[in-house]
Amino acid sequence: MNAAQTALLAALRPVLGDRGIVTDPDLIAPWEIDWRRRFHGHAPAILAPADTAQVQAVLRAAGEHRVPLVPQGGNSSMVGGATPPQDGAALILSTRRMNHIRRIDAEGGVAVAEAGVILGDLHDAAEAQGWRFPLTLGAKGNATVGGLASTNAGGTQVLRFGTMRGLTLGIEAVLPDGSLHDGLSALKKDNRGYDLGQLLIGAEGTLGVVTAAALRLAPAIAGHATAWVGLSDPAAGLALLRRLQAASDMIESFEILPAESLAAAVAHLPGARAPLEGAHPWHVLIEAVTGDPAVDPSAMLEAQLGRALADGVIADAVIAASDAQAEAFWLLRHSLSDAERALGPAVQHDIAVPVDAMPRFMVEAAAACDARFPGTHASGFGHLGDGNIHFHVRAAPGTDRDRFYAEQAATITRFVHDLVTAAGGTISAEHGIGQMKRDELARLSPERVAAIRAIKRALDPHGLFNPGKLIACA
Amino acid sequence: MNAAQTALLAALRPVLGDRGIVTDPDLIAPWEIDWRRRFHGHAPAILAPADTAQVQAVLRAAGEHRVPLVPQGGNSSMVGGATPPQDGAALILSTRRMNHIRRIDAEGGVAVAEAGVILGDLHDAAEAQGWRFPLTLGAKGNATVGGLASTNAGGTQVLRFGTMRGLTLGIEAVLPDGSLHDGLSALKKDNRGYDLGQLLIGAEGTLGVVTAAALRLAPAIAGHATAWVGLSDPAAGLALLRRLQAASDMIESFEILPAESLAAAVAHLPGARAPLEGAHPWHVLIEAVTGDPAVDPSAMLEAQLGRALADGVIADAVIAASDAQAEAFWLLRHSLSDAERALGPAVQHDIAVPVDAMPRFMVEAAAACDARFPGTHASGFGHLGDGNIHFHVRAAPGTDRDRFYAEQAATITRFVHDLVTAAGGTISAEHGIGQMKRDELARLSPERVAAIRAIKRALDPHGLFNPGKLIACA
Repeated sequence: MNAAQTALLAALRPVLGDRGIVTDPDLIAPWEIDWRRRFHGHAPAILAPADTAQVQAVLRAAGEHRVPLVPQGGNSSMVGGATPPQDGAALILSTRRMNHIRRIDAEGGVAVAEAGVILGDLHDAAEAQGWRFPLTLGAKGNATVGGLASTNAGGTQVLRFGTMRGLTLGIEAVLPDGSLHDGLSALKKDNRGYDLGQLLIGAEGTLGVVTAAALRLAPAIAGHATAWVGLSDPAAGLALLRRLQAASDMIESFEILPAESLAAAVAHLPGARAPLEGAHPWHVLIEAVTGDPAVDPSAMLEAQLGRALADGVIADAVIAASDAQAEAFWLLRHSLSDAERALGPAVQHDIAVPVDAMPRFMVEAAAACDARFPGTHASGFGHLGDGNIHFHVRAAPGTDRDRFYAEQAATITRFVHDLVTAAGGTISAEHGIGQMKRDELARLSPERVAAIRAIKRALDPHGLFNPGKLIACA
Repeated sequence: MNAAQTALLAALRPVLGDRGIVTDPDLIAPWEIDWRRRFHGHAPAILAPADTAQVQAVLRAAGEHRVPLVPQGGNSSMVGGATPPQDGAALILSTRRMNHIRRIDAEGGVAVAEAGVILGDLHDAAEAQGWRFPLTLGAKGNATVGGLASTNAGGTQVLRFGTMRGLTLGIEAVLPDGSLHDGLSALKKDNRGYDLGQLLIGAEGTLGVVTAAALRLAPAIAGHATAWVGLSDPAAGLALLRRLQAASDMIESFEILPAESLAAAVAHLPGARAPLEGAHPWHVLIEAVTGDPAVDPSAMLEAQLGRALADGVIADAVIAASDAQAEAFWLLRHSLSDAERALGPAVQHDIAVPVDAMPRFMVEAAAACDARFPGTHASGFGHLGDGNIHFHVRAAPGTDRDRFYAEQAATITRFVHDLVTAAGGTISAEHGIGQMKRDELARLSPERVAAIRAIKRALDPHGLFNPGKLIACA
């Protein structure tokens, strides 16, 4: 611990108390490694304020003592976004003690949750009041409201409800100078200059600390239906999606995967089997959900899929006959990443292009990769309706794992990112930039990074907030 | 014209040509006065680039020569936001020549329109393709896409479709350094750091120039119904709104007005009459709209209003029997401002509080104003469903107009703004800050202004963009 850090802890002990300052290395260790275990950092202490006023005190004191801070919620970043730097210069500011749901407005459908509220707990609290919070993702047992807002998180329901930005009515945050941005009153119209709440959403903790959010809820689920569809190519998938969206506003998930991904999942999961009898080059998993008890999503899917079958848009389809079957379908989807990992080393890319361009991109980008890197195999699966897929390039069979990551991965990633950029797309659809994509962002979008850097310096002139994430330290 | 301006025009003449540089004072004059004719500025020239590349050239040259620019679309700001400063130091950068709709995606429901496209023209173009752009306001014959985005405009359909921010899928803009922010590819997910498009929406031209926007369209109107309702107080109005919203997603406008405002409108409009026979303290104008030919908004309103009548929520209601009658209802609403102006001098306030708090605020704030300023009369009307009303305080009968504005108006406005701030509200719901509310924003929200100023300096270090708007010149 350096002298500035020691002085900061001494100044903060009367404010935070013993519970609010963690210096035991064993208790800190799990929070120094990222979710994917790729980035190993070091922080001599964790500061854990209990409320917004304590966050303000921490930020003011850290500013005085010039101690960098890494805001951290569930530490479930996919890009090393919440892991401290290796040099030990920064302390972790954990929001985990700020885990109160301040209120749920059961009439208006709004929840105000503190930054440390875990997504799964928010789901439960909303459900208990007859609502639901319609954003979910694999890390829902860890990810927190503050992190979800700071990374503009997505997930499998974006198609219908949008990302975290679309679900956020207002943000409470402490800016680097310790001032409070109170945007929680959830005004439907407010034109008082730059929207600081919008700036903080997706800022990855580089402009201060989100302390709470006012969140839009959706009506509780009254009925749902899950379908599995076999089809010839991604273009047919998009055509099906457009039909379904024209017929109904119930389509909440529309996930595409190639036959090889399905085969990998079936092989990976004990006792699993493919939902359809025949072989199909591509598959789609569809979830239709309604909050209206008078509407039947199953009947809607049956009618629409029947028509699509008759019109030759799709090759086969089955609607889950029970909740258990629906869960089995979803388990196949959720195990894709693990299943593919079992096939050998691969580099993964969280990319998006405009929705209409995605079917063609999926096919052409995979072919271009395969041609450019002989022996490797590229494919994508994911959120076709959002124009967002996880695009994986697997090493040639027999390639040594460490050598692949050390010698080939970065070259492959640059190639994929160039393809995405040429298609008007993004190198980060959902996961943010963090540490992992920082240099690629600088390479591909220097003007964007210049604007980001200027804003960052304006609000955080000493570079104390989440140093090294999003942009390199100055 | 000062030396820097002369040098700038010389540098730009080869780029913009004669059509792109206006120096005739008679042609400039209409653009030096604001919409409400309260702010009189002076600009020695108007620069009128024809495309985005020309805007980049203008901004680079203006940066070199340190010439301030006032971006201007239709000059329909309600807060003097697009009027040049009086000292003649700034030139107007008009977007009016950039009036092309680049494309309308008739399948996906997206329009890409340049900054100078007039709102009414966008309405027509969308309609011609079987869609509509669901944002409208009084100045639709003048207001442009760039100005609507830069002020996050609202209007009478916000209840259902949100403000301009909610309708904007992406922004193309030129930043003060001349770099292009190309956010038009309309990615549904993009997490590459701070959302510059969101920052530019509502920035009032102080961070560069919006050159185009990708905009979400709504299905063309298949049917609509208009109702006029009499009720006892604003709380009953909100109760009715909640019932209608629970029953249907068709409620697009929900405008409240007191009996005295209706009386003023009826007196002001030749041949007009009140929609209901009896006298009611408060009135609501409702518009229900559907894009689905199978749905009957009239039947829905009839059923719901009948039930509300039976339950004692409302006192009387009538549904327009023809388009002509519906237009007559709306004409009453749209003439409220003119009608009230005819009653004598008044100060107007474009304010919002949380929706649930508005009924009480309307009644209590009016009473507080009347008590504090004896002889004056306060009342509000407008977008109850958005928590946004136009709150007017009329001078005591017989007060001299000029004396009222010179001696009383500012004091009254500060009093009203204090009430709004205490209620967790905003002093600008729709109109922005511009010149008119700049000092009030600084008085009431010094920390917000500090953050705005820091960001402004970061992106516009020489203070060249729309100087004196939003924040005072440094």
